[in-house]
Amino acid sequence: MLESKFYGIGVGVGDPDMLTLKAIKAFKELDVVVLPEAKKAEGSTAYEIAKEYLKENVELLFIEFPMVKCVEARKGFRKENADKIIKYLEAGKKVGFLTIGDPMTYSTYVYILEHLDGEIPVETIPGISSFSDMSSRFNLPLVMGEESLKVVSLNGETNIVEEINSADNIVFMKVSRNFDVLRDGLEKTGNLENVIMVSNCGKETQEINFDLTKINKEDIPYFTTLILKKGGINQWKKFIS
Amino acid sequence: MLESKFYGIGVGVGDPDMLTLKAIKAFKELDVVVLPEAKKAEGSTAYEIAKEYLKENVELLFIEFPMVKCVEARKGFRKENADKIIKYLEAGKKVGFLTIGDPMTYSTYVYILEHLDGEIPVETIPGISSFSDMSSRFNLPLVMGEESLKVVSLNGETNIVEEINSADNIVFMKVSRNFDVLRDGLEKTGNLENVIMVSNCGKETQEINFDLTKINKEDIPYFTTLILKKGGINQWKKFIS
Repeated sequence: MLESKFYGIGVGVGDPDMLTLKAIKAFKELDVVVLPEAKKAEGSTAYEIAKEYLKENVELLFIEFPMVKCVEARKGFRKENADKIIKYLEAGKKVGFLTIGDPMTYSTYVYILEHLDGEIPVETIPGISSFSDMSSRFNLPLVMGEESLKVVSLNGETNIVEEINSADNIVFMKVSRNFDVLRDGLEKTGNLENVIMVSNCGKETQEINFDLTKINKEDIPYFTTLILKKGGINQWKKFIS
Repeated sequence: MLESKFYGIGVGVGDPDMLTLKAIKAFKELDVVVLPEAKKAEGSTAYEIAKEYLKENVELLFIEFPMVKCVEARKGFRKENADKIIKYLEAGKKVGFLTIGDPMTYSTYVYILEHLDGEIPVETIPGISSFSDMSSRFNLPLVMGEESLKVVSLNGETNIVEEINSADNIVFMKVSRNFDVLRDGLEKTGNLENVIMVSNCGKETQEINFDLTKINKEDIPYFTTLILKKGGINQWKKFIS
């Protein structure tokens, strides 16, 4: 048990240059790499980013967190995944859980932490989150001065107008789930002009929209994020081509 | 003008290993390094982190953004600072503005961006923000599942109870400004048990507090952040020693 350690490692959203030195140092230590939401290494963005730094004989462990409706079933899957990882840790291995973005921001990594006892050493290495990446990419400030910032993951039950009223800058994630209601709320509160919506940020299929009026909910890709800046967004468009 | 470029570069909060590869690559390109809020290189955390990667003959430019009450005066200082930087850019230089944490999150970098015309190329390189660093350091999730996250910079006028009611997880920055009211609000809303307060995070003088009841406002260092997790914080204490 002396040697074992569990790492949560943020790898950013896709650009390998967004890795931190700390993440790279950790990669070199790992006996086992956990790839969540993946079935094989090919096609795993996190693995592609990390692979050049991994030991040659590193073991890959693929785990899934199925998005089933039943809460009990979800908890069951999490426990199963944690048990798999704990086995490796109990055998003295160094195990790294790779997370797209940041491990403490909407990552399934925390569902493993829940099941650890606090005896095995844990080290979480932060990564650049999707909204931080997006704001830098477009030179668009997330939050300035005495403003507030809010991050909301949309679902069918989100009270949009309440969310809009609750902060100066709001990052709405998973926009496709609730696009019509979001657009209505933005219109009602006079904020239709204060947004940027980006789909597949940083990918070849990236799309940037400032005008939501002609967009159909059906056409919105899953990876779509909208940033609302109530202080206005026009003054920042000069950097966005 | 062809060669000139303006970079905003996040360097994290102090650990040089939190640099991204992208930041390091940019450091190597710079003709001029802008160090905000610093009077000389010694004692500048950002400079200490970057220096081993900088060109030998790099020029250091120290600028200040004085926190004066008068808005017009503040704007004047920002314009002056921007003008200084624009001069270097117009001379064809590559200029990098170093930011503790992340350049798009409460950084004075954006006050330079405001004054650029969009003609000179700009590249913002995100960094690990203070709250992201803090949550990873303590293996404490910032936001999970369908929860929301809010970041608030306290000032004398903040309506604390409203803020507490507005999200599932809240990062309160600059806690010393408004500590008594914040503690009252946490008590009123039944959240006194759901917080961690950290002063001088990551430094030798770091202090961690879970119990706010015996703390005097006067004893709270300037760099103090409180994270409220309404879902409870006890289940995460196992990782915090």
